[in-house]
Amino acid sequence: MEKISVEEIINIRKSFGDLVHYTPLNKSHTFSRLCGNEIFLKYENIQRTGSFKIRGAYNKILKLSDEERTRGIITASAGNHGQAVALAAQRFNIKSTVIVPEGAPIVKIEAIKNYNPRGNVVEFGLTYDDAYQEALKLSKKNKLTFIHAYDDLDVIKGQGTVGVEIMEQLPDLDCIFCPIGGGGLISGISAYCKKVNPSIKIIGVESENAQSMLGSLKNNKITVLASNPTICDGIAVKEPGKITFEIINANVDDIVLVSDEEVANSILLLMERAKTFVEGAGAAALAAVLNNKVQIKDKKIVVILSGGNLTPNLINRIISKGLIKEGRLLKFKLTIPDTPGELLKILNIIASERGNIVTIIHDRERLELEYQKSEVIIEIETRHFDHINQIISKLEKEFKIELLAF
Amino acid sequence: MEKISVEEIINIRKSFGDLVHYTPLNKSHTFSRLCGNEIFLKYENIQRTGSFKIRGAYNKILKLSDEERTRGIITASAGNHGQAVALAAQRFNIKSTVIVPEGAPIVKIEAIKNYNPRGNVVEFGLTYDDAYQEALKLSKKNKLTFIHAYDDLDVIKGQGTVGVEIMEQLPDLDCIFCPIGGGGLISGISAYCKKVNPSIKIIGVESENAQSMLGSLKNNKITVLASNPTICDGIAVKEPGKITFEIINANVDDIVLVSDEEVANSILLLMERAKTFVEGAGAAALAAVLNNKVQIKDKKIVVILSGGNLTPNLINRIISKGLIKEGRLLKFKLTIPDTPGELLKILNIIASERGNIVTIIHDRERLELEYQKSEVIIEIETRHFDHINQIISKLEKEFKIELLAF
Repeated sequence: MEKISVEEIINIRKSFGDLVHYTPLNKSHTFSRLCGNEIFLKYENIQRTGSFKIRGAYNKILKLSDEERTRGIITASAGNHGQAVALAAQRFNIKSTVIVPEGAPIVKIEAIKNYNPRGNVVEFGLTYDDAYQEALKLSKKNKLTFIHAYDDLDVIKGQGTVGVEIMEQLPDLDCIFCPIGGGGLISGISAYCKKVNPSIKIIGVESENAQSMLGSLKNNKITVLASNPTICDGIAVKEPGKITFEIINANVDDIVLVSDEEVANSILLLMERAKTFVEGAGAAALAAVLNNKVQIKDKKIVVILSGGNLTPNLINRIISKGLIKEGRLLKFKLTIPDTPGELLKILNIIASERGNIVTIIHDRERLELEYQKSEVIIEIETRHFDHINQIISKLEKEFKIELLAF
Repeated sequence: MEKISVEEIINIRKSFGDLVHYTPLNKSHTFSRLCGNEIFLKYENIQRTGSFKIRGAYNKILKLSDEERTRGIITASAGNHGQAVALAAQRFNIKSTVIVPEGAPIVKIEAIKNYNPRGNVVEFGLTYDDAYQEALKLSKKNKLTFIHAYDDLDVIKGQGTVGVEIMEQLPDLDCIFCPIGGGGLISGISAYCKKVNPSIKIIGVESENAQSMLGSLKNNKITVLASNPTICDGIAVKEPGKITFEIINANVDDIVLVSDEEVANSILLLMERAKTFVEGAGAAALAAVLNNKVQIKDKKIVVILSGGNLTPNLINRIISKGLIKEGRLLKFKLTIPDTPGELLKILNIIASERGNIVTIIHDRERLELEYQKSEVIIEIETRHFDHINQIISKLEKEFKIELLAF
């Protein structure tokens, strides 16, 4: 394994100037109470470009030769890495090309475009792999330097600067929870922090729908694992990097998995309690802590909020999922006689139990329904699961109801 | 006007201990660029209880006599003030009663309950005024000290501690934009900051749907103005306070108004760019700056993000409103022949113009429709208004489309 020295990472941190924020590390009272540890959130979601990726991209471009810079750079990314490469390229006044799969979220494509006036964005292929292959092809054809999102030592060292800040901000920390996609972030952080203090525990977190790093560690070799769709799209990586696999194998104490529901819930909690906005991958580490994926108590834990670029269109679904998970939304269907007063009776029961009605859909036209019946779908804001049970049992005395998923 | 001394406010700030956060003041590159000033955001949305209100509530309770504390306190509030009173009461181990109007958001009622195990929450009446009258009545009947949300000098002085932090964090600031509801926050901040540096400009921001302070200043006396519904519910106040009116009259340089659309857009920008989460009132000051409500350039402006307690159920609507405002969502209806291939034709046009389809509702059952026609409602994610126009003009060559509001 190539050596990464503490001094080198510290010097990279110093080279950043004003392009890369020194992000806050703040204690969260709420999350500390919820899990019985002292929880400190590292806010990489408010980093420039909305994620830690700018650290690695900047360091990589800084290390390029003048000739390489003149020829320009290329990468494939539908998200945070693409934005980071574009902004770093703009800072060095370099031409950047970012290949994104067709159908990538428009807001992300626009962001990449806006970061570098000398850059361009090309939509190609249907999957990330298509875009990746195209980027490699163009890289060779046009002699553009390919900037890998994680499997590159300069990129990894750049991400390691998160570790420099953490060790300055909380020198006596016990443990770091960090999301894993390709593994660049946790490689950099663990390489630095373990050298400074070998007793620090490093826990990696993957989505249970994209667990290629855990799978590779179990197999003791790099293993390609197809990923299922997940709201942690930022860490849905099928094939770990060679360099990152080696570093993680040596440094990381454990890798745990989180579900989309756990992540959605954590996104919602971060919004409601910490008033901060993260993407799926950015909430994965907190989800692992709050759902006790590792047995740990009374320790000082740093949780990396790695990014905040959540597509607005996804928020609605996440909020609903989170609210359901906490027993704060209820949706059900009833078929009732289409006579005056029936709907009112239902609404009275809900009101007497202090449910807040969000939506009512009252349909008497559906073809499958018997004549003189109508169907009502009702969505209610509730307090907690006991409250839901209370409302349901009261309604079931008079009506047959069917619970619905959202 | 009663005197407020600089030293007193500084001492109140020192009395807070660990209950009240010293909140960050951070420069925003994005917002600075958008308005041609240097914009610094004061993050009171991440204050304990999610708003600045804890400062005033804590100081008020601190100043109560032992006897008053033993008897307990009461207030009326559907929101931030109620949470602040509950937490401050808990800190002093005091019994608190918070009267909220019936139908107040469940999440807020639960928050108030959770902050003080010795406190209770009573739902009463349909409006805030009903709850307020009930609180006054119970206050007299049970000899509970009523904690006013803004028209109280100890509360105002507590809010003034925001000014102490700002002057420490950015001594050479030129201007502060601050939301106005009852006026407690801006009274405290302006009383402090103007004494430290009289050349600092203080701009108040009200919702155009709730402009009682501006109306009162124009009339030169306190004037009750009915407020219309607004997403800035935290500053929808019908009647300014007597003390706050006097202080604002003396100290505040201008009051400007913002619309719900401007606020929704600012909430969305704060989410997407600053990754921070604010309620309507919390985004009002930024909305005023970004929409050039005051002619000001190249100045150092502090923008108060006063609170972050946005009900999750409101977020969806705000996101949609904001996206529409920015030309990033399009919804329209078409009636098409119910023959194979028609829908596909539409989708092909949208795809060729790179619109991202969010929802399709395809209905062939509606009774008003002619036989063999079906209706399609389509919602598309778009890039900007030019993109919308492009898609529409292409579709209109073949179909008659009707634009829909959300």
